[in-house]
Amino acid sequence: MRIVYLNGDYVPRSAAKVSIFDRGLLFSDAVYEVVSVIDGRLIDMERHVTRLERSLGELSINASADWSVVARKLVADNGLQEGLVYLQVSRGVMEDRDYRWPAPETPPTIFAFAQQRVLIENPLVGRGMRIITRPDLRWQRCDIKTTQLLYASLMKMEAVAAGVDDIWMTRDGLVTEGTSQNAHIISWEGILISHQLDRAILPGVTRIEMLTQAKSLGLAVEERAFSIEEAKDAAEAFISSSTLLIMPVVEIDGHRIGDGRPGERTIKIRESYLAAVHGDNSKRP
Amino acid sequence: MRIVYLNGDYVPRSAAKVSIFDRGLLFSDAVYEVVSVIDGRLIDMERHVTRLERSLGELSINASADWSVVARKLVADNGLQEGLVYLQVSRGVMEDRDYRWPAPETPPTIFAFAQQRVLIENPLVGRGMRIITRPDLRWQRCDIKTTQLLYASLMKMEAVAAGVDDIWMTRDGLVTEGTSQNAHIISWEGILISHQLDRAILPGVTRIEMLTQAKSLGLAVEERAFSIEEAKDAAEAFISSSTLLIMPVVEIDGHRIGDGRPGERTIKIRESYLAAVHGDNSKRP
Repeated sequence: MRIVYLNGDYVPRSAAKVSIFDRGLLFSDAVYEVVSVIDGRLIDMERHVTRLERSLGELSINASADWSVVARKLVADNGLQEGLVYLQVSRGVMEDRDYRWPAPETPPTIFAFAQQRVLIENPLVGRGMRIITRPDLRWQRCDIKTTQLLYASLMKMEAVAAGVDDIWMTRDGLVTEGTSQNAHIISWEGILISHQLDRAILPGVTRIEMLTQAKSLGLAVEERAFSIEEAKDAAEAFISSSTLLIMPVVEIDGHRIGDGRPGERTIKIRESYLAAVHGDNSKRP
Repeated sequence: MRIVYLNGDYVPRSAAKVSIFDRGLLFSDAVYEVVSVIDGRLIDMERHVTRLERSLGELSINASADWSVVARKLVADNGLQEGLVYLQVSRGVMEDRDYRWPAPETPPTIFAFAQQRVLIENPLVGRGMRIITRPDLRWQRCDIKTTQLLYASLMKMEAVAAGVDDIWMTRDGLVTEGTSQNAHIISWEGILISHQLDRAILPGVTRIEMLTQAKSLGLAVEERAFSIEEAKDAAEAFISSSTLLIMPVVEIDGHRIGDGRPGERTIKIRESYLAAVHGDNSKRP
């Protein structure tokens, strides 16, 4: 039986329900994190907690919990070896529906669950992702990890319908990010180009360690937005995310990237990333 | 005891709970309607149902219910004389969290509740609303009435902090709408100017009847976006919404509109609107 966490209790999945007056449900007034689990261990938990607390701070949601303890217990109780832990926090339940926030002492709604998924032996690594581009119509505070994911979900379905693996979104001709991944390219000059951290993209936790590993492999890094054309002309393209880790991109809008196979440096960055998160016990709370 | 509706049942409020795996909660994959109730009667229910079905269609959510029957029963069971009925539909509950939609036969989650509120004798009518403007950072499909209301909620709180009644949002210098109202002005030439129906604004149900009444009062109507400056220089300004009905605006960004009192034509439109929705039984299912 799957055990999930809800407001301090560990309960069977079927018992985990929230009020229809929860602000997460009525106003999308909620933030979340997805933490990957490899060999039964949480990857980069501290950075996820830091980002969660930043999201909560940006929205002035008062919530605290032993996030790592909850996540570890869900991994243990569900016997999870590989997959993810999902954590969500909303501003809590209202007496009556109102755009205005309830009193600050209103308890937040906190829930979390574990979910199995293949992360390491993902067959996408071998063939690489095929991507199409679409306008980025999301709100303009994508740096806050809110549950306002409807557009990302619509784009994911558009990718499915188009027979490709994902969408890269663009604003004013520049690539922002994927539906739930940061987007990166490597130029023929060997420069890794990754969108700067601003309100247009989520500050990826995997992106941080990826950039560290890329630099240690001798790549120069430029943090700036790139155009679709620049991406098409790049030597390599790839994405980073907590559950896809580092994943090569081999095609953008029908145009082959490099020789159409997963980039050599991308694969090196993935291996280097995996060695780092496997080898560094400080990232395993 | 307050009775609410959830997936076919009428239950006490405290029993109305949805799974944490509901897509409304995890992906804001949900749409809603707010129908006003005056003298125990639902106002413009048919138009709300039409809009709800359009929203569902835009997102390919399969859901049907006897919306009017549900709303009428909530009004009756809760003895509601004046206020609103809220209806929400999400794409339903997932087995595992996934951006991709579950199978089309997945039952949607449908809930509804009634809520008391003073609509007719709202003291705001007498003094008029004071408004400030802020950039519209919402997603670019505001024509679909989704629960992605976080930015509107943040703006409402910004209005509260600034000691004003609401925010008008602007894109490229042009007013789109209020946090949960359509925005309109009347020029010194007697022309009612209201943002055209496109993806930047919600197609207001109250706006439809308001425009009909304004025309019957002899006002010319231009459906186009107007700038903040044009609004400040207008003879009158006002908003329309299902729960505020027609409400005068007397100040924008500290600048007095007209003589700083609720506009004469605005008040006439409000009276005319109220007479129409009171007097027309065809709008009272």
